[in-house]
Amino acid sequence: MSDHLETLPRDQPAKQIGILLFEGVEELDAMGPWEVLSHWTQEYPEDEWQVALVSLDGRPVAGAKGAILTPHEALPRVLDAIVVPGGAGTRPLMRDEPLLARLREFHATGTLVTSVCTGALVLAVAGLLQGRPATTYHACFDELIAAEPTVLPRRDARWVDDGDIVTSAGVSAGIDMSLHLVRRLAGESRAVQVKRGIEYDPEPPI
Amino acid sequence: MSDHLETLPRDQPAKQIGILLFEGVEELDAMGPWEVLSHWTQEYPEDEWQVALVSLDGRPVAGAKGAILTPHEALPRVLDAIVVPGGAGTRPLMRDEPLLARLREFHATGTLVTSVCTGALVLAVAGLLQGRPATTYHACFDELIAAEPTVLPRRDARWVDDGDIVTSAGVSAGIDMSLHLVRRLAGESRAVQVKRGIEYDPEPPI
Repeated sequence: MSDHLETLPRDQPAKQIGILLFEGVEELDAMGPWEVLSHWTQEYPEDEWQVALVSLDGRPVAGAKGAILTPHEALPRVLDAIVVPGGAGTRPLMRDEPLLARLREFHATGTLVTSVCTGALVLAVAGLLQGRPATTYHACFDELIAAEPTVLPRRDARWVDDGDIVTSAGVSAGIDMSLHLVRRLAGESRAVQVKRGIEYDPEPPI
Repeated sequence: MSDHLETLPRDQPAKQIGILLFEGVEELDAMGPWEVLSHWTQEYPEDEWQVALVSLDGRPVAGAKGAILTPHEALPRVLDAIVVPGGAGTRPLMRDEPLLARLREFHATGTLVTSVCTGALVLAVAGLLQGRPATTYHACFDELIAAEPTVLPRRDARWVDDGDIVTSAGVSAGIDMSLHLVRRLAGESRAVQVKRGIEYDPEPPI
């Protein structure tokens, strides 16, 4: 056992990541991060992180493209990190005051708040992107700026790590952001292992 | 309306793609192709293709990493194309004679048969890879060759298009293969549109 592990408190529970499911969530926005983060946490439990799919009420949702996705549980009161995916269903979320309050509470109590694609719009109306650099789906920067005029749009970024808030570009960018999160939370060699595990050596054919 | 569309039979139903779900399916193996193919077929219905998630009995399945995935229907008798994902759950499928017979029947009747990751092992034991070039998950080529000694392993390929059978490498490679399928079935400009739609400009951080 390494010195590092010796210094970990023995009774500390694993840290928890929640990936938020909601009606109209874009499927890959959620399931890309799920694959990366669940591969990491399940193959390497010694890192002491866990990930779950969560929905507001714990019930299944229909994704933007019509796949039914079932959460493991309702959104818990406490999370160490949350992933807010995008999709057409983010627009109703932007008017969901209880959810916006929960996101503000998560952020205020130290939860690492992250988004994929138009999930950034939800963070914006929650007030979490004031004066912050952020990215979103390429076609939605006007909406992002309308939601938060002081945001610093990063149109060419695949993801933007601004410390306690991390945003990523559209849909498939959640995979890249999630690998970045693994690197940030568990180190580069672990991220390399996870990348190999999901064989992420992309070759877009066009 | 273009001359090309004028020549299409007016009463021809849309062609059908099924993505096979099963207990222990690797989540991204199925949901990567789902995102690509559902984006294509739903945004461009004029191409007259449709895609559905299917399971053997139409019931939900638990993925390899523990996400519950719900199919739209049971595996139909007729499909124009089928995607067989990988995952730990492929090993029981390799002993599922009724499924293997169905795959042989699909292939024999003109269905385009494709696989992601260890889905190729199922194609192999079904006898569909005899003397064929194919790829699979990087760690599973020995299993592939054991299942079909005459297969021509393509260890460095992201995907292998051998006409009526297309195989892809591990997990995330299903996204690349699916974009290739869009290009093959609907043309390069459509594939470029779908790639942009899911913002697939990957930047692995490590």
